[in-house]
Amino acid sequence: MENKYEKMWQDIGLDVPLHKELLESINKSFNATVGAQQNRPLGMKYFDQVLHESHGGRVAELIENKARGNKTVGTFCIYVPDEIVMAVDFIPMPLCGGTNFSVPYAEKTFPRDICPLVKSTLGLAFSKTCPYAPIKSMAVGETTCDAKKKTWEILAKKVNFHVMEVPQKKNDLDKKIWREEVEEFKNKIEALAERKVTPEKLRQNIKIMNDKRRALQKLGELRKHDPPPISGLDALVVMQGALNDEPVRFTQNLNKLNQELEERITQGISPFAKGVKRIMISGTPSVMGNWKVHSLIEKSGATIVVDESCTGTRYYENLVTENDNNIDKQLDALAERYMKINCSCFTPNDDRITDAVNKVEQFKVNGVVHYILQYCHTYNVETLKLDAEFKKKNIPSLKIVTDYSEEDIGQLRTRIDAFLERLE
Amino acid sequence: MENKYEKMWQDIGLDVPLHKELLESINKSFNATVGAQQNRPLGMKYFDQVLHESHGGRVAELIENKARGNKTVGTFCIYVPDEIVMAVDFIPMPLCGGTNFSVPYAEKTFPRDICPLVKSTLGLAFSKTCPYAPIKSMAVGETTCDAKKKTWEILAKKVNFHVMEVPQKKNDLDKKIWREEVEEFKNKIEALAERKVTPEKLRQNIKIMNDKRRALQKLGELRKHDPPPISGLDALVVMQGALNDEPVRFTQNLNKLNQELEERITQGISPFAKGVKRIMISGTPSVMGNWKVHSLIEKSGATIVVDESCTGTRYYENLVTENDNNIDKQLDALAERYMKINCSCFTPNDDRITDAVNKVEQFKVNGVVHYILQYCHTYNVETLKLDAEFKKKNIPSLKIVTDYSEEDIGQLRTRIDAFLERLE
Repeated sequence: MENKYEKMWQDIGLDVPLHKELLESINKSFNATVGAQQNRPLGMKYFDQVLHESHGGRVAELIENKARGNKTVGTFCIYVPDEIVMAVDFIPMPLCGGTNFSVPYAEKTFPRDICPLVKSTLGLAFSKTCPYAPIKSMAVGETTCDAKKKTWEILAKKVNFHVMEVPQKKNDLDKKIWREEVEEFKNKIEALAERKVTPEKLRQNIKIMNDKRRALQKLGELRKHDPPPISGLDALVVMQGALNDEPVRFTQNLNKLNQELEERITQGISPFAKGVKRIMISGTPSVMGNWKVHSLIEKSGATIVVDESCTGTRYYENLVTENDNNIDKQLDALAERYMKINCSCFTPNDDRITDAVNKVEQFKVNGVVHYILQYCHTYNVETLKLDAEFKKKNIPSLKIVTDYSEEDIGQLRTRIDAFLERLE
Repeated sequence: MENKYEKMWQDIGLDVPLHKELLESINKSFNATVGAQQNRPLGMKYFDQVLHESHGGRVAELIENKARGNKTVGTFCIYVPDEIVMAVDFIPMPLCGGTNFSVPYAEKTFPRDICPLVKSTLGLAFSKTCPYAPIKSMAVGETTCDAKKKTWEILAKKVNFHVMEVPQKKNDLDKKIWREEVEEFKNKIEALAERKVTPEKLRQNIKIMNDKRRALQKLGELRKHDPPPISGLDALVVMQGALNDEPVRFTQNLNKLNQELEERITQGISPFAKGVKRIMISGTPSVMGNWKVHSLIEKSGATIVVDESCTGTRYYENLVTENDNNIDKQLDALAERYMKINCSCFTPNDDRITDAVNKVEQFKVNGVVHYILQYCHTYNVETLKLDAEFKKKNIPSLKIVTDYSEEDIGQLRTRIDAFLERLE
């Protein structure tokens, strides 16, 4: 049966047969994890669809936007301020890959021992199965880790690439560098758009992004309930959608879902029984296509109530000041808000430690799972500092270092089961 | 037989029996590599002795210096300006470990998949076999890679630790950050010393360090001869000594060695025959204890004529302006000189690419060996960019990613032999 988007994929130059294999691989993984859950909120239908349309309807929207003279800007990190891209009617599109399918295509030229997220992303582009790669007019990298920082240099030879310097400390001069990077980014976007970022448009889009963050914060709050009205895996699917979907539509649908979740709380409906063991995921992101560890934990009978990650609280915490109507002040406000993201690239990163310990209390967490993508040195080593604090508060933790493959699933299940048995 | 330093080791709290095992392991490795060479310059006796005394006589000197009210400052990177430490009569001491012996002691608590240099260093400290660890009054880290950057945070809990922010780009604001870091470092050293860094003392020590660099540059020049009067492995031993020895004495002895090498050139004496295949090592450092790849290459019949690494040209290239007599100008000069080091932490790092290609021509190199310590993402990925340039000039290259173990020696030998056969 021919997919209705097949012509579109052909037109943008994808390897259509290989792309079909990719989608089948992702669907298989989706059905075995997200799709295998019981008692899901009805509102999740929309977010499942966001996933399923990420290579179809969403791509068509980007092409339509392009026909209107607008552009798509690919990103790889939540440090890139979407608001600026949106203020010229461009679409920011996170390009991080969460599928093992594409990893071998990256390993043909790139080192094997860099993180699966980078390899998956590169592999999609190299194998002509990423529908965004041929559409985007610019890609924006940053300096949050060694592997990505050096990868951009290789990609910059083939693609219109801009790199934002995220500094390594949070001193005054570092903040000044970041503020300058935000302004330079605005200048780059203006040059690409051949029009100015106006304070009005920027204000509108700061509001749009804040609304999205507020809806995600609300979802976060609802997960505090015992039992939570939604699985951690479904909350992750929502978050993955947040990184791909049109933001106004996304927020409307998330507000609807949140309403349903409130009703479920009133009616005592949950995929879990009261008293279910509550887990915090802490560490690296789980982007679209990657449901492995969330699914394993919840299949083992616990639930994830909060994600202290870039596909979790780090994405939606902290709003941008909304009332400014002057471009300099707005850029100040953007720089300030984004600089609050406690990425492990910073040294020291003590606010993350304090924040993680607070979250354990706020979400009544029974245990923490450090989720570390293989070869991610910063999050990996930082678990030692987190664990020192967790230990003081008698909070058990388990460190999982893994990639996107399924080879270690049996071993992980055993380790997760043993960890959950230890929890009080 | 009791070692004459046994009491000293006991006094500073080393695990003396384990430390004895460590020395035996290093000596075994030394004898199988450096010691197994033929036709070495007589002047190498001094540098062999620097190695052999690094846990003995040199430690005794540090203890004597301490008794005079002075201190030792441990460092892990050639970005730390030794001149400032020396200007208050303190001794800067690089602490990087090059031995596999200590790696398991680090892996007890640290992730396995970080680079062997970091693990070896930590393992020495953790197992009480590093004689400098208990003597040093402060350790100075930097932010040149993810693994080290996050490791300092863990060590800072136990040790008086200072971290210098090496920025990620080389823009004006980055240079300003680095200049500020150099000044802050001076302030830290002054606070520790309870005395000021005077322009006179700084000028003297800038001269001392420049003299050392000039002697190393001269050695570098002598290696341009065909055949070179000294093996690449011996030149590495000299470099490793440069990081450990008292600088004035070191320079005197290196100047003597250089004289001998000039005579060897006149007399046609070399460990190699004319026309020997000439190799450039490019990439990560080979610190004391690590002779593995250099030895393998030269045992296979080629010679290393230049090291484009932190235990090579990056250490001794570029002098500090000597004539300033004003502390601000001197700090400017220091910041400027150190910022020229083309560490792969920078993005982009194009000067390194240009420099490496130039070196191939200047040193009449037949082939490049990318020497990459395992899990060093920045140097690993940067080989792609170097190779793109080498390819344009028909310069063959071989990438070796390895750790300090001996497990891959057979495989490496096969790969090196095959590579050397390809060279014209």
